[in-house]
Amino acid sequence: MRTSSPNELMMRLDRRASPPLRVQLEQQLRDGIRNGSLAPGMALPSTRALAAELAVSRGLVVEAYAQLGAEGYLVTRPGGATRISEAAAGGPAARSRAELPRAPRYDFRPGAPDVSLFPARAWLASVRRGLARAPHARFDYGDPRGAPELRVALAEYLGRVRGVVASPDSLVVTSGLAQGLVILTRALVARGAGSVGVEDPGSAPLWQQVAGAGLSIVPVPVDAGGVQVDRLGDLAAIVLTPAHQFPTGVVLAPDRRAGLLDWAARRGAVIVEDDYDAEYRYDRPPVGAMQGLDPRNVVYGGSVSKTLAPALRLGWLVVPDRLALDVAGQKAADDLGTPIVDQLALADFIARGELDRHLRASRLEYRRRRDAVVDALARRVPEARVGGIAAGLHVAVYLPEGTDESRVLEAARARDVGVFGLSEHRTGPGPPALLLGYGRIPVPAIDPGIRALSGAIDAAWAE
Amino acid sequence: MRTSSPNELMMRLDRRASPPLRVQLEQQLRDGIRNGSLAPGMALPSTRALAAELAVSRGLVVEAYAQLGAEGYLVTRPGGATRISEAAAGGPAARSRAELPRAPRYDFRPGAPDVSLFPARAWLASVRRGLARAPHARFDYGDPRGAPELRVALAEYLGRVRGVVASPDSLVVTSGLAQGLVILTRALVARGAGSVGVEDPGSAPLWQQVAGAGLSIVPVPVDAGGVQVDRLGDLAAIVLTPAHQFPTGVVLAPDRRAGLLDWAARRGAVIVEDDYDAEYRYDRPPVGAMQGLDPRNVVYGGSVSKTLAPALRLGWLVVPDRLALDVAGQKAADDLGTPIVDQLALADFIARGELDRHLRASRLEYRRRRDAVVDALARRVPEARVGGIAAGLHVAVYLPEGTDESRVLEAARARDVGVFGLSEHRTGPGPPALLLGYGRIPVPAIDPGIRALSGAIDAAWAE
Repeated sequence: MRTSSPNELMMRLDRRASPPLRVQLEQQLRDGIRNGSLAPGMALPSTRALAAELAVSRGLVVEAYAQLGAEGYLVTRPGGATRISEAAAGGPAARSRAELPRAPRYDFRPGAPDVSLFPARAWLASVRRGLARAPHARFDYGDPRGAPELRVALAEYLGRVRGVVASPDSLVVTSGLAQGLVILTRALVARGAGSVGVEDPGSAPLWQQVAGAGLSIVPVPVDAGGVQVDRLGDLAAIVLTPAHQFPTGVVLAPDRRAGLLDWAARRGAVIVEDDYDAEYRYDRPPVGAMQGLDPRNVVYGGSVSKTLAPALRLGWLVVPDRLALDVAGQKAADDLGTPIVDQLALADFIARGELDRHLRASRLEYRRRRDAVVDALARRVPEARVGGIAAGLHVAVYLPEGTDESRVLEAARARDVGVFGLSEHRTGPGPPALLLGYGRIPVPAIDPGIRALSGAIDAAWAE
Repeated sequence: MRTSSPNELMMRLDRRASPPLRVQLEQQLRDGIRNGSLAPGMALPSTRALAAELAVSRGLVVEAYAQLGAEGYLVTRPGGATRISEAAAGGPAARSRAELPRAPRYDFRPGAPDVSLFPARAWLASVRRGLARAPHARFDYGDPRGAPELRVALAEYLGRVRGVVASPDSLVVTSGLAQGLVILTRALVARGAGSVGVEDPGSAPLWQQVAGAGLSIVPVPVDAGGVQVDRLGDLAAIVLTPAHQFPTGVVLAPDRRAGLLDWAARRGAVIVEDDYDAEYRYDRPPVGAMQGLDPRNVVYGGSVSKTLAPALRLGWLVVPDRLALDVAGQKAADDLGTPIVDQLALADFIARGELDRHLRASRLEYRRRRDAVVDALARRVPEARVGGIAAGLHVAVYLPEGTDESRVLEAARARDVGVFGLSEHRTGPGPPALLLGYGRIPVPAIDPGIRALSGAIDAAWAE
């Protein structure tokens, strides 16, 4: 891959314009990445070279690179150049289009369940019952928080399955958790918040979603006990994945939970609990949601994206009283409410126990896949270490020190193995690691896939 | 109704804070209206009194009142005090909750079709076919612009029915036109736009939606020929309803159309064509969409909210090339895409001719209702004048000069007649007028409803 020279970036900073120079630089880099003039994988000039070219301080360029790294636009390899992220290039729209063409032969891409397991027949039956039972008024403009039928069903379900303390009035149905985080972000901005803590490593798409909606993101380091609570300082809010940290797979340690709740209570801060794949724990019953311990300071968010299908775009927030009106108002401002038919269907689907039934079957299937991945890794890549707990739809796999993560990804791509690196999801250097999802790959393809991946790892060392 | 004294408003302007005083004043008024401390219907102090109390210029208060009037929070009666709008009070969320309790006996509230006509059986059949035919990949994260099946069907339908020039790639499926306008607004803001022209009289909810998403709205007067094109000046964009102006019901005159397209082409401005109820014209074939005349400068928007049901939350934008990436990116940033199942259903529903069939039937029904309204008015309120063309789902009814519109509304409410005034939808004074919707009232209820309304008009004069 080539490295661009500072001149090639064609940055023009205007010292008389009102946005600070750092903001101008960030904006021009973002625009360039979105419109494709800065290509995925391209290395940026060093901070020293770009600072000299633009006649600004090196610190300013370092800060701009760090912010865009945190937003997922840039990736810095340990000891290497800062590059345009493969994942973020072109923005979400372009990325999604770029993903359309064809799935790789061995598809370990994380982030989705097996959509071929979607229970279409049972869903259709729930649509039928939902349509038949709904009063006509449901088809008019309605409560922007969602259909009462679904908010009642979710309050019961989340209480039973996750220990969430929710009343129908505290629930807001959203178009997936992505929209939930976006409207929550906008509501916090409207109340004067400027920044929010996020986990690092964390979810780069989540960083983008939150930053795009107006909050600066402040990376907070994650270690084996989850997010480091003593690093929260004077943040007004933090988004985290306590049950199964994305991407490392660790669980938030009990003392960290307590510390976090204490921090929020003392400071009036908001904890946003992203419970993105909590229904999948394979070794023991899952830890209950944090929200149940302090519903006043925790916003709880979930969706059916990992349990049924991402394309249903159905998610929810459980919102503390003090934020309830603002979040509902922002939902109304953004789209007047979530479409009704699937809401009625999900209410029926939950009430009839279909969701429980579907989860029992898919939990077995994903557990088999996870075991197959771990087993194949132990045999074919014995030098790798699997991180995190037996849960969710992906594993973090740490490679031996000195492995060049991006070379492994290139070699994997050449072998038609779809896999992402962990460095996309962190803002600074870290150990080389891969994220292996098993939502998209059936059991029989796993061993051959890991064999191909093992070949890619060897090839990266041989280069 | 009581009038608040300046002191009661409890405004505190901070001269050392960074937002300008006018912005602070607007924000505090908005907050007060949203949280209910400023009650619906309450009269605000005169601009002179409030300016004196706050020790600011009267012009500053006038501007703040005007902006909030344009956003739909405040209403100014001709010759009367400025009051908190009944419609906007509490924000969209609270408003929607407030609307839930019970429909009035004679329900002339405009803005929705008859949801009891929703073809649930045919829709379910389309859901079934859509689910059966869709490849598994449709249930994963997909193109944020929407399902290809639906974009293909809509491109054909809009071309055939409205003369819209659309390719599937120019279409973005949204959660209703409300979300379409919001993401378009955000895309324009990201490109540096600060304000947008809107029709005055116009749709107060639309003003709120656009202003909430970040553009200042600039009212442009509407007369019998539609929006006054010579008043557009150096605006970067305008949103308008050329086929059937909301709320006046007039059609944009042919020379205005030409002038508008010429203005946009010369200045590189954007015309946003809100085609909100174009499928309903009763006297002759409807005028084609403006978009067909210049797809480079017109963004076309529509939805099924008036043809099928608002709660489906299905709308679309046809976007010129120069805005396509930005709008798709904003859609992805806001919610990653519209839910899939109803998209697949609508694609099937259109392709099988079910939408045409439903529209033929409902057009007949609404025409009967409109005739019944006009006929009953002629007999029972002969002094009233019906404005606009024979189209859509409501009529604007102008009352004799000197009628007190808000007294009529109060007297109507006392008689359980649901009706809105036109002054909610304009920023300045204007002739007294009512908006009578017939989407929610069946033919047999219309004559008794108009009789009750006639009683309310008499009562307003007698007070």
